[in-house]
Amino acid sequence: MTTFPEHALAVARALATDVFDRLAAATGDPPGITRASYGEGEAVAQAIVSEAARGLGMECSTDAVGTLRMVLPGRDPSLPAVTMGSHLDSVPHGGNFDGAAGVVIGLAVAAALRADHRTPRRDLLVLGIRAEEMCWFPAHYLGSRALFGLMPKDAADTLRRVDTGRTLAEHMADQGLDAGPIREGRAALDPARIACFVEPHIEQGPVLVEERLPIAVVSGIRGSLRYPQASAHGAHAHAGAVPRRHRRDAAMAAVALIAAMDERWSRLEASGADLVFTTGILATDPAQHTSTKVPGVVRFSLDIRSEDAALLAELDTWLHAEAARIGAARGVTFDFGPPTHAAPALMDPTLRALLLRHAKDAGVPAREMASGAGHDSATFAGRGIPTVMLFLRNEHGSHNPDEALDMADVGAALAVLVPAVAELLG
Amino acid sequence: MTTFPEHALAVARALATDVFDRLAAATGDPPGITRASYGEGEAVAQAIVSEAARGLGMECSTDAVGTLRMVLPGRDPSLPAVTMGSHLDSVPHGGNFDGAAGVVIGLAVAAALRADHRTPRRDLLVLGIRAEEMCWFPAHYLGSRALFGLMPKDAADTLRRVDTGRTLAEHMADQGLDAGPIREGRAALDPARIACFVEPHIEQGPVLVEERLPIAVVSGIRGSLRYPQASAHGAHAHAGAVPRRHRRDAAMAAVALIAAMDERWSRLEASGADLVFTTGILATDPAQHTSTKVPGVVRFSLDIRSEDAALLAELDTWLHAEAARIGAARGVTFDFGPPTHAAPALMDPTLRALLLRHAKDAGVPAREMASGAGHDSATFAGRGIPTVMLFLRNEHGSHNPDEALDMADVGAALAVLVPAVAELLG
Repeated sequence: MTTFPEHALAVARALATDVFDRLAAATGDPPGITRASYGEGEAVAQAIVSEAARGLGMECSTDAVGTLRMVLPGRDPSLPAVTMGSHLDSVPHGGNFDGAAGVVIGLAVAAALRADHRTPRRDLLVLGIRAEEMCWFPAHYLGSRALFGLMPKDAADTLRRVDTGRTLAEHMADQGLDAGPIREGRAALDPARIACFVEPHIEQGPVLVEERLPIAVVSGIRGSLRYPQASAHGAHAHAGAVPRRHRRDAAMAAVALIAAMDERWSRLEASGADLVFTTGILATDPAQHTSTKVPGVVRFSLDIRSEDAALLAELDTWLHAEAARIGAARGVTFDFGPPTHAAPALMDPTLRALLLRHAKDAGVPAREMASGAGHDSATFAGRGIPTVMLFLRNEHGSHNPDEALDMADVGAALAVLVPAVAELLG
Repeated sequence: MTTFPEHALAVARALATDVFDRLAAATGDPPGITRASYGEGEAVAQAIVSEAARGLGMECSTDAVGTLRMVLPGRDPSLPAVTMGSHLDSVPHGGNFDGAAGVVIGLAVAAALRADHRTPRRDLLVLGIRAEEMCWFPAHYLGSRALFGLMPKDAADTLRRVDTGRTLAEHMADQGLDAGPIREGRAALDPARIACFVEPHIEQGPVLVEERLPIAVVSGIRGSLRYPQASAHGAHAHAGAVPRRHRRDAAMAAVALIAAMDERWSRLEASGADLVFTTGILATDPAQHTSTKVPGVVRFSLDIRSEDAALLAELDTWLHAEAARIGAARGVTFDFGPPTHAAPALMDPTLRALLLRHAKDAGVPAREMASGAGHDSATFAGRGIPTVMLFLRNEHGSHNPDEALDMADVGAALAVLVPAVAELLG
């Protein structure tokens, strides 16, 4: 067990509070803050964070795809670095903490180590990753995938920022960056140089608030099985004059399918499976629907997420069979449209156990939970890097100006992370 | 049993075919035909029909609310008249038969009586009713309710035609009619002067086509229990990060309610109940919905119809209880919005038996069935007038240019109606 003096943790908490305040002041865009991917707010955030890092004696640089790298040097620079961090971009008019919390807490860990006058064996590398929010460029984990050379080669010239219509390459040029590494599929960071990745992040759901817990260790990032543009096709008919057996009611068929999936979700959850299911879009045709007409068509979306890739595959098969059964019984054809699948990313069991042990030692109540949202950690885990996330309690959800991270909870997270990362650093 | 010579029925069929052709030619508005309520096409249809009636020696007049009345005089004008007919308006770009068929077949019955040189005891009154289609003025059975002084007194000045924005009174003035009777709630026709009402009409559903039957005797006009503007209200949330127990998913709650009603409908129908159920509108909020967000609100409609008023009342109670149960379980509030109820109208058992007997005598295969759509007959039945409807087979549904009434089925209907009406006329 690595113990840490309270004064060093106090220094870390103070640094975090100070950097959060400066970020909010410098990137404010009422309501909330805006830090566009490969844009101005993100660059301002990099400048504030790197200034704080230099104040801690860290070596700061920007890599070929614009990632901010801040290194607290260890005794043996030949060893792969213990890595922390998250992204510095935000949604438009978002909150101060989604993404930035992981970078700031990484710096705060460095501040605690320095305040305790420690020089561990390994480097501590803190990353300010670019472009995680999909609302700017329509691509998942753009910044971390670019970091590892994983973006499609044409992305630099085909991806356009939603607000400007300009390409990724053009926005990179604005930031003094050349799109060459993306066009060539070249990694800016060698996974072999990363010992492990630890990403603190605010929880985007209400679980920790409801359960009165300051933190959670993330067990895995849910994969998804999505059909964003599904539809059912039957035939319009008179609502009064057409009996049940003659109907081809598209809406009722979709309702039957969604209700069946909801029922199955309920039973799977009761048996302990990790699963969420959402139909975010459910819409009869506004140009044709009226309350007195059997709907001939309905559009809907299916979004199913689980840590369990086998369960997602099983549900995919089941959904198609159920749709075929319901469609045949009701004279309706289902068209699922193009799917978008994302594989689940499991967090490293050793790192999860390490964080839970330090939470227990520090007297910080914690639980394990799945992340329903995607995060840069999925990219790191996908590269074979032992990865873990720590969720911090946050009221009002994320991607809005009301994100609320209590500095007391940052303190609780640091009480766990500082000794845990110190142990990893050796 | 009243027998009729084939040559008289042949005259009736020829007249019907001729008048249908003239109506289609004069009110064509490709695709289909248009006869606006208290508008030009309706007036043209009245002129064609009354010309044909005069050719049969009928006395034609227009009453205070514009109903076309055509009388084949009987021997005793002091007796209440046997009355036939239907409406002469249509939906925009509708078919040639919805409404008009009832008027033309009424004339054809008169033609058959005349061809057989009969002068019955009672008058045969054939009505060309105004304004039955709700798409022009937003009111049910406007023409027949006005005929009996049943419209709200302010309707003449507050109801506006959807296509012109002008009031009912203004459109009546265009037709040379004064809105006084509507403003005063004055009946233009005394129910005591009507012995019974017989309304032939095309079937608006597919039952007769599917069952290969030319006609059906209508057992009753379904009443309705409608909530056209229902909604469910929960809370928007992240589709991945919020677990089932924390969700307040408005769409899933509405799906559960609609699926429960569909299941109940299926069981009630299996036990022999008369019922149809439609959710014509089901819509998450287009301004807010995405496939990755739990929907906080959904709009939907409920349309339940049955001949059985007690069943409608029971389902109304059940729906509210079920919504309360589902809402409590799912953290969602249901708002049913304003209801529009219409009472069922039962057709007269003696008249139903009369038509079934004449169908059997004429060798015309027939069944009884409920009418799911509303008709002017509901107004007549509501006035205590013994009323019956005869449905004629029709492909492709109604309210569209593809309505298809086979003249052979008109012949089958006349083979039943001519002797039946002759019996009623005495």
